[in-house]
Amino acid sequence: MKLHFDTDYMEGAHPQVMERLLETNLEQTVGYGQDDYCKQAKSLIRKACGTEDIDVHFLVGGTQTNSTVIDALLRHHEGVLAAETAHINVHESGAIESCGHKVLTLPSHDGKVCPEEVREYISEFYADETYEHMVAPGMLYISYPTELGTLYTRQELTELHTICGERGIPLFIDGARLGYGLASEACDITLEDLPRLCDVFYIGGTKVGLLFGECVVARKGLLRHFFPLIKQHGALLAKGRLLGIQFMCLFADRLYTAIGHHAIEQAMRLKRGLMAAGLRPFIDSPTNQQFFILPNDLMDRLARHATFEVWGARGDKETRVRFVTSWATRPEDVDSLLELL
Amino acid sequence: MKLHFDTDYMEGAHPQVMERLLETNLEQTVGYGQDDYCKQAKSLIRKACGTEDIDVHFLVGGTQTNSTVIDALLRHHEGVLAAETAHINVHESGAIESCGHKVLTLPSHDGKVCPEEVREYISEFYADETYEHMVAPGMLYISYPTELGTLYTRQELTELHTICGERGIPLFIDGARLGYGLASEACDITLEDLPRLCDVFYIGGTKVGLLFGECVVARKGLLRHFFPLIKQHGALLAKGRLLGIQFMCLFADRLYTAIGHHAIEQAMRLKRGLMAAGLRPFIDSPTNQQFFILPNDLMDRLARHATFEVWGARGDKETRVRFVTSWATRPEDVDSLLELL
Amino acid sequence: MKLHFDTDYMEGAHPQVMERLLETNLEQTVGYGQDDYCKQAKSLIRKACGTEDIDVHFLVGGTQTNSTVIDALLRHHEGVLAAETAHINVHESGAIESCGHKVLTLPSHDGKVCPEEVREYISEFYADETYEHMVAPGMLYISYPTELGTLYTRQELTELHTICGERGIPLFIDGARLGYGLASEACDITLEDLPRLCDVFYIGGTKVGLLFGECVVARKGLLRHFFPLIKQHGALLAKGRLLGIQFMCLFADRLYTAIGHHAIEQAMRLKRGLMAAGLRPFIDSPTNQQFFILPNDLMDRLARHATFEVWGARGDKETRVRFVTSWATRPEDVDSLLELL
Amino acid sequence: MKLHFDTDYMEGAHPQVMERLLETNLEQTVGYGQDDYCKQAKSLIRKACGTEDIDVHFLVGGTQTNSTVIDALLRHHEGVLAAETAHINVHESGAIESCGHKVLTLPSHDGKVCPEEVREYISEFYADETYEHMVAPGMLYISYPTELGTLYTRQELTELHTICGERGIPLFIDGARLGYGLASEACDITLEDLPRLCDVFYIGGTKVGLLFGECVVARKGLLRHFFPLIKQHGALLAKGRLLGIQFMCLFADRLYTAIGHHAIEQAMRLKRGLMAAGLRPFIDSPTNQQFFILPNDLMDRLARHATFEVWGARGDKETRVRFVTSWATRPEDVDSLLELL
Repeated sequence: MKLHFDTDYMEGAHPQVMERLLETNLEQTVGYGQDDYCKQAKSLIRKACGTEDIDVHFLVGGTQTNSTVIDALLRHHEGVLAAETAHINVHESGAIESCGHKVLTLPSHDGKVCPEEVREYISEFYADETYEHMVAPGMLYISYPTELGTLYTRQELTELHTICGERGIPLFIDGARLGYGLASEACDITLEDLPRLCDVFYIGGTKVGLLFGECVVARKGLLRHFFPLIKQHGALLAKGRLLGIQFMCLFADRLYTAIGHHAIEQAMRLKRGLMAAGLRPFIDSPTNQQFFILPNDLMDRLARHATFEVWGARGDKETRVRFVTSWATRPEDVDSLLELL
Repeated sequence: MKLHFDTDYMEGAHPQVMERLLETNLEQTVGYGQDDYCKQAKSLIRKACGTEDIDVHFLVGGTQTNSTVIDALLRHHEGVLAAETAHINVHESGAIESCGHKVLTLPSHDGKVCPEEVREYISEFYADETYEHMVAPGMLYISYPTELGTLYTRQELTELHTICGERGIPLFIDGARLGYGLASEACDITLEDLPRLCDVFYIGGTKVGLLFGECVVARKGLLRHFFPLIKQHGALLAKGRLLGIQFMCLFADRLYTAIGHHAIEQAMRLKRGLMAAGLRPFIDSPTNQQFFILPNDLMDRLARHATFEVWGARGDKETRVRFVTSWATRPEDVDSLLELL
Repeated sequence: MKLHFDTDYMEGAHPQVMERLLETNLEQTVGYGQDDYCKQAKSLIRKACGTEDIDVHFLVGGTQTNSTVIDALLRHHEGVLAAETAHINVHESGAIESCGHKVLTLPSHDGKVCPEEVREYISEFYADETYEHMVAPGMLYISYPTELGTLYTRQELTELHTICGERGIPLFIDGARLGYGLASEACDITLEDLPRLCDVFYIGGTKVGLLFGECVVARKGLLRHFFPLIKQHGALLAKGRLLGIQFMCLFADRLYTAIGHHAIEQAMRLKRGLMAAGLRPFIDSPTNQQFFILPNDLMDRLARHATFEVWGARGDKETRVRFVTSWATRPEDVDSLLELL
Repeated sequence: MKLHFDTDYMEGAHPQVMERLLETNLEQTVGYGQDDYCKQAKSLIRKACGTEDIDVHFLVGGTQTNSTVIDALLRHHEGVLAAETAHINVHESGAIESCGHKVLTLPSHDGKVCPEEVREYISEFYADETYEHMVAPGMLYISYPTELGTLYTRQELTELHTICGERGIPLFIDGARLGYGLASEACDITLEDLPRLCDVFYIGGTKVGLLFGECVVARKGLLRHFFPLIKQHGALLAKGRLLGIQFMCLFADRLYTAIGHHAIEQAMRLKRGLMAAGLRPFIDSPTNQQFFILPNDLMDRLARHATFEVWGARGDKETRVRFVTSWATRPEDVDSLLELL
């Protein structure tokens, strides 16, 4: 049997989550997230975020969450600023554009946007006399961690939020892998900081222990009329309590934190092992995605025993690959992979 | 504790489904429905439909499925014909229009469209000299059972399909409650008939035993480039196997049929009991939704012990209500409800 | 040569308008409506409307204007209320839906909506517990005159505006034929009243003397970021001054009023003549569109010498037709038509 | 009075065009482009293009034409490839995205895309295993001349068309300034070549002698159901004959060619004069847009007597500017400008 390091959504849910779904399975509740589990989950999340001044919503998947939130925030003449490597720009089949909005791209610095470049983009836009013929930057999208596993510093987030605030445009953080970012040693923020560091973010569940589910946390009142918009986007789960129950599990016992730390520990063991074997990363990621350059013969040998993602095209002599750990990664699997080297 | 007859999505999943999700929970598979469970489920569904000439796709929820299928089928200048009571016209928060398409309404006859009126609509459209300034009828949407619990006869379905076929416009059947339609004594078709009676339909899972999930069955080649469209609509589940596993359960052991019959049996017991008590239905539904007129004092008394849906506004003396049964309805709950009369 | 009564856009522009376009043809001005002619035209229109508290914008055509204004006013979860006979519902090829918005239809009373029915629609919407799954009524669209030539009374307009105001939803009046409405003897309002009787309306130019051009008049600040939206909708004319110059002509010398009165005078002569000949209208229109029932043999005879629009399908014995007059209708043409009877 | 070199849409229409509009002003014709003038204009354009195997449509403006054609050609999961400097990517207020489509950008080489890079983009797209999560390149948009005045060679156009043809994706040429491209000495194609060198293009009228108007020429059958789409996009002119009459003028007497040559002659005189004065272009444009670097003191001095467009931000010592000529540029104005140096 192969070792799997392809991605962080290869299993079902964390066993505690499954157990809770089983226990509650035959209970009867109202639909569409109006049930008590959802209420309790929201309450736990407000507590974990350290504030009552937020609105909490549950959606099913990441692309869906991105397009629903962005659609809720942008006016017709506005687009969303994002790194050219952003998930919304590259891997969502045009979901943002299908809602009528342009993705305005900024250079990617290992997946991150540079605050100074954001500032320049915005000032150049308004300095241009023909700006009313162009798409206005109406919000900023970043991901934490980024699609390349990297993290913004608190300082960078603060600057980005300030720049956005000066123009009254919301800062939105895609947290599909948020749990793996917060658990990183390189992380200098906490979940409690996020409501102050941005206007809206989401706590990804799909990749961090749940069957599915993304939890949007927004500055109170920011996302007006969000319920019908969720419905319109096909993102409203009839049995909404499934989301409530799952997120309750994640936040009842600090399971979210534990899951994050487990994945990061395995990722760091993997990283150290690969480097000890003389391999070098092409991106220095402190989170659960590890990006390394492998000589082709080694890659081919590894591929007989393990799965991982080839990143771009196969090179002549060496190739870029990505290894991913998760809540479900077993320490012995990391050991086995390293032994294969 | 109250008796619940509000709707058919108040519980989790059928126990066999939950059990199977648990068993497979820690297995590792590729994402996005490319796994073996999805393949096997598709194979079972092709078998249950009695043909290989169909494409099978899994989506998460009903509104999402409606808007994705309709968006896939309509060209820009076309709209979708539907009864004015159709779910897509009334209860999907404008999801169809948000994709750019008009819902062209026809009179509702207890939730059904009349073949003759469909034919007239289409011919009048093309007879009008200004028709190129109007939205062309590009497909027909019906539901089976309808939102009012009623069923089309085989004869009606055949006529509708013929009328559509003459103009080359697809007939799409929303089968959110399909299992409860097929199990009705009034039903004169089988699942195997459906691929011949329409161009595309879906087998609803959310209301018929699953946590969530709708299975689209389309004439082979009809839904071109449907995968990226599913993604774009936010309807692509990362852990796609959850859909495969669930639908495998439904179709491995004729569970789908069993579930349908159970709900219909309870619905018919309820219906007979209500009528025996002198109450009369305002729609004569042969499926799992029962629509009755209750004197207000009886309704208020019942409401202390049971939940059900008030249909429209409360009347002066009597009020219309809906009772719904499902796979999870316990015979003793029906008994208890009837005793309350 | 035939007499033409098909519609009110069969000629070019009023001779005064053409003359002015010719005089200014080789002048050089900046584009996109930033020129002095546009400024002067806006100033004249503010004067004609009797208020400075309005924003004035020029667009090219009616369908374009409807979809741009409606798109500017509606939020994603909202639709536009309109009579089922409304131009936006029937004859704009789905332009409103292509922008993502549903047209919510109300019964047509000779082309008009009934204030009481608007009120009921809105209250029933919010009374329904599932209203968040439905499209919210976000604005009201009416036309003055309606597509059937009829006029709202001041009283009706006031009621409609009050009902809308109570919910904070804008009332939008399509004035494609406004000039022919204001000139009618049945009209009990003036142009100066309109800014108080609604939130936004437009003064149609295409059908009232111009080559093309519709002038949107909105409560100050209502249409935020309208310029980029005009551009996005393809409604921004590069040589924007053409609109300014044309509207200056219409409003410099009360030409708009004169044009309106001329068309109405001819329409009333036609109406009286038709009635004197024993024919009866199927709609009693006080404006430039006249709707009569003709015996088929008379219709066929007339059709050899004149053009007019058959309204719906040809009947067995008699058929409904529409005659339209305009600024360009010559009195002798009306005489000739009447003689044919 | 100032000399104006800002752009090519500062005047009305060529005097012959105005004259013809005046002559026909009071004629009565049917609307929406179904009249004889439109038919004759289409016939002349087919002749000028040297083929009957094309469909010809008239629209009002450039942004409108781009978004209508692109919307007609793309399926939902597809985007349009274009240079990052393309008008549709930068200066159309997100019109393409508002129709649901992504603009997929390629590097700009003085406004042009490089055939080799187009080929690479397409092959890399299909080589990527996750390509179904990305927006498919569904058509290629280029402009001739480009937004930077440059021209593709026949060889480049042939290669681009071949590359597109191999994938079955249409090549669309924005010809807003086509007349100025065809008249350039650097041009090695003719209008007759265009139907073979691409799948659809348009002959710009707004900037080349008309009040407004763009003429779409498409491979027969390519733009299916285009009429209702034009209407839906608000691009259908009620008095459609205005477009027919204007394009008849342009193509009846080779006026289009004459206009093009006049503007190019003046542009080349201007270019030679500027270079003779020691100034250097920052783009070597062979068409009616000339891009030069001016020392700031010279620029400021010129600006007192002439208008032109500052291209980007003012530099410390020197600044980039654009001068534009047109059919209306008087030779003596070029002389006067050059004397100012």
